[in-house]
Amino acid sequence: MEKQKIAVLGPGSWGTALAQVLNDNGHDVTLWGNIPAQIEELQTHHTNTHYFKDVVLDDKIKATLDLKEALADTDAILFVVPTKVTRLVAKQVAEMLDHKVIVMHASKGLEPGTHERLSTILEEEIPTDLRSEIVVVSGPSHAEETIVRDITLITAASKNHDAAKYVQELFSNNYFRLYTNSDVIGVETAGALKNIIAVGAGALHGLGYGDNAKAAVITRGLAEITRLGVKMGANPLTYSGLSGVGDLIVTGTSVHSRNWRAGDALGRGEKLEDIEKNMGMVIEGISTTKVAYEIAQELDVYMPITSAIYKVIYEGADVKESIINMMSNEFRSENEW
Amino acid sequence: MEKQKIAVLGPGSWGTALAQVLNDNGHDVTLWGNIPAQIEELQTHHTNTHYFKDVVLDDKIKATLDLKEALADTDAILFVVPTKVTRLVAKQVAEMLDHKVIVMHASKGLEPGTHERLSTILEEEIPTDLRSEIVVVSGPSHAEETIVRDITLITAASKNHDAAKYVQELFSNNYFRLYTNSDVIGVETAGALKNIIAVGAGALHGLGYGDNAKAAVITRGLAEITRLGVKMGANPLTYSGLSGVGDLIVTGTSVHSRNWRAGDALGRGEKLEDIEKNMGMVIEGISTTKVAYEIAQELDVYMPITSAIYKVIYEGADVKESIINMMSNEFRSENEW
Repeated sequence: MEKQKIAVLGPGSWGTALAQVLNDNGHDVTLWGNIPAQIEELQTHHTNTHYFKDVVLDDKIKATLDLKEALADTDAILFVVPTKVTRLVAKQVAEMLDHKVIVMHASKGLEPGTHERLSTILEEEIPTDLRSEIVVVSGPSHAEETIVRDITLITAASKNHDAAKYVQELFSNNYFRLYTNSDVIGVETAGALKNIIAVGAGALHGLGYGDNAKAAVITRGLAEITRLGVKMGANPLTYSGLSGVGDLIVTGTSVHSRNWRAGDALGRGEKLEDIEKNMGMVIEGISTTKVAYEIAQELDVYMPITSAIYKVIYEGADVKESIINMMSNEFRSENEW
Repeated sequence: MEKQKIAVLGPGSWGTALAQVLNDNGHDVTLWGNIPAQIEELQTHHTNTHYFKDVVLDDKIKATLDLKEALADTDAILFVVPTKVTRLVAKQVAEMLDHKVIVMHASKGLEPGTHERLSTILEEEIPTDLRSEIVVVSGPSHAEETIVRDITLITAASKNHDAAKYVQELFSNNYFRLYTNSDVIGVETAGALKNIIAVGAGALHGLGYGDNAKAAVITRGLAEITRLGVKMGANPLTYSGLSGVGDLIVTGTSVHSRNWRAGDALGRGEKLEDIEKNMGMVIEGISTTKVAYEIAQELDVYMPITSAIYKVIYEGADVKESIINMMSNEFRSENEW
């Protein structure tokens, strides 16, 4: 593959790690962000110490506050901004872009209010003469490990197979590997909904439960987010893949995960506002819980774990009591939907 | 449910933990084993210190070396013996049993040589006038956690729904909960095959890789054992359940798991014979790797992780090189079979 020019929008931990992967593969990468101190640090010291204390990036990776500059002559644009600003940034991109590009995103959430998936937002806001079919990049990936070039396998999902293959080739190397997938709805909903279950797994840990309970909440959680995903149009087998089970494993079993840590703190009795303040990063699972709870009501899907977490976060229910209630539900068959 | 009389065959860690669950539920439980010192310890001190250093069992739990005594007047028999002696013990049970019982098993393996599932062995060796349809008890469960009454959720699978419901009710209480499932082939093959992937996840850890790599090998491992299971007659969705994903999570992400620990030691360059000697417990994943490798050859199923582990264990291949080879396979779609 020839050298490509890529704009990475959002220099958070994952955006920065993906920028480094692309730079390792010989591409021309520009990180765009809107926090002056962060961009200046990237330009001057090639570091992003809010996320990575000990990492110095290759000085070929550029950074800018100027979106128009980032978009100039790009072959592809990667959105890695928080869910709640995706629509806003997409509108700005649509205004400034003057040529057709491959549009990718690597964020995991559902828009509050509209309940929309992020690729739908990008489709709505960026006209088709300026973009390919959207490609979703998602899977089990702590940025902290990818940035040190540890082995990472994720998914590139698109309705257009050629676009997915392009992104597969763009990112893949000897430590980073992509599998293509045509089920955009499945990959996107799995990536978003798994954060709810990660909060639940963290809460069980915070309450003092062990590995059996963790595996149980992850598995039964997988069953309920699959039920919801299928009602939204996903293929259930996508939930067994990298963006489902895979991401649920890293997010639900690791202290690196901010969603897991938020749940752990909830389990230990901390207040949500303190958790969010201490974290200093976006906790997508908190707002996704509300969106999923609303969609489940609307589509009439049984989601006992999501409901329990919703009630703890948004209605002040007691964590321990909510877990015990879940354990005393009626007897079920495993495949009952 | 009325008080039931249960024989638990095999006082290993899991057999002992399950005996305690049944005793907690008010049933009359007898553990049978063939190691005199262990049975005497259980009879005299109500302990099984080889597995649980700090646990004293209820003195109502009986133990015996006499199989006939264990089987007398039982309502149900639970096999929890190592895979390689299941047929032998089943033959003895068939000889000594003088009434019809519910037959359950909670072991995870495939018979070397014949490649048979354990329920098939029990069906072959115990005549139908002496037993129900077999019920398989399987799922994410470290005995070390169940013995201290931590939350555990597992599956009871049988071709006969009433038999599965009986077992569900027999075991369930406020910390231990069973879901029924009709896919015996799926539950049994998932429980056995997941041990191979746990060895692989351990090996990656031993080699120094992180959580992304762990999630990757577990997810791609799940994909390949599902491929094999489906060829053997399983429902792929069973592999997303407690006996598949759930068990893979506890076994593939926890130092409690002997299969994971064996892989970890392989990754650190230890020799298999030393690992087995140091462990002092049966490592089912080692022999299951061989059986699965043979079945995959026979049924022509692509299993790159299983093959890599087979070659490390049985052909002396280098662990690190085998992993790197796996990473440089051709590009694939995620759902390619």
